[in-house]
Amino acid sequence: MMEFSVRRIGRVLSPLTDLADAPRQADEGAPDAWLLFDDEYAPALAGLAAGTDVILLTWLDRADRATMAVHPRGDESRPLTGVFATRSPDRPNPVGLHEVHILAIEGTRVHVRNLEALDGTPILDLKPVLTPDR
Amino acid sequence: MMEFSVRRIGRVLSPLTDLADAPRQADEGAPDAWLLFDDEYAPALAGLAAGTDVILLTWLDRADRATMAVHPRGDESRPLTGVFATRSPDRPNPVGLHEVHILAIEGTRVHVRNLEALDGTPILDLKPVLTPDR
Repeated sequence: MMEFSVRRIGRVLSPLTDLADAPRQADEGAPDAWLLFDDEYAPALAGLAAGTDVILLTWLDRADRATMAVHPRGDESRPLTGVFATRSPDRPNPVGLHEVHILAIEGTRVHVRNLEALDGTPILDLKPVLTPDR
Repeated sequence: MMEFSVRRIGRVLSPLTDLADAPRQADEGAPDAWLLFDDEYAPALAGLAAGTDVILLTWLDRADRATMAVHPRGDESRPLTGVFATRSPDRPNPVGLHEVHILAIEGTRVHVRNLEALDGTPILDLKPVLTPDR
């Protein structure tokens, strides 16, 4: 088995602290949140702008990595489905993808709209939504 | 520093073998490719369907993880920009995101259209493009 190491480069600051309260998707009532990057990553944030959409990658640290199939959205009336065909956090490599809108940037703190990640979730990366000019 | 371990769950099979030939984005002439998943992940593929779009996560194993800023698209006439505002493969956690269309599925082999990843690139995850029903 080949493995690689990912580093926590920051964390989510959010009023969402309980898994039971977390919406399954951001469009289902997720609160605004702050992305707190560690100071050493300040140069990597240069050029990000408020008012743009970005893709946030997180590490879903409470996931069960042995799960291969789930009932979509926890609904047991739906057939078991392979995790690669779902957005289940339980999967072999629990990397979360979140498309968010940047409301403001203050140093290494980035304020974003409607983020469904729990408070304290480790941040792995931030990428622009793809446009031909990037 | 907090670190997490990601596992290679499969690899890309592609005619693209040379970084110099790789298009910077999939819409710039990337070839079709196969995603070869390790056998143990077969249950996680159940429910994936040809004709749908998915997001492939890869590990960009040739990336320079110390790079914090780049000239976008390697164009030195453009100002140095933080990697989080670009799609540069050189970044602290070099996870590649690729939106691809599934052409066919044969067991644990998935044929996809226009993938800009090099032959042999490690696969980390596959997720559906987000729809409310998932």
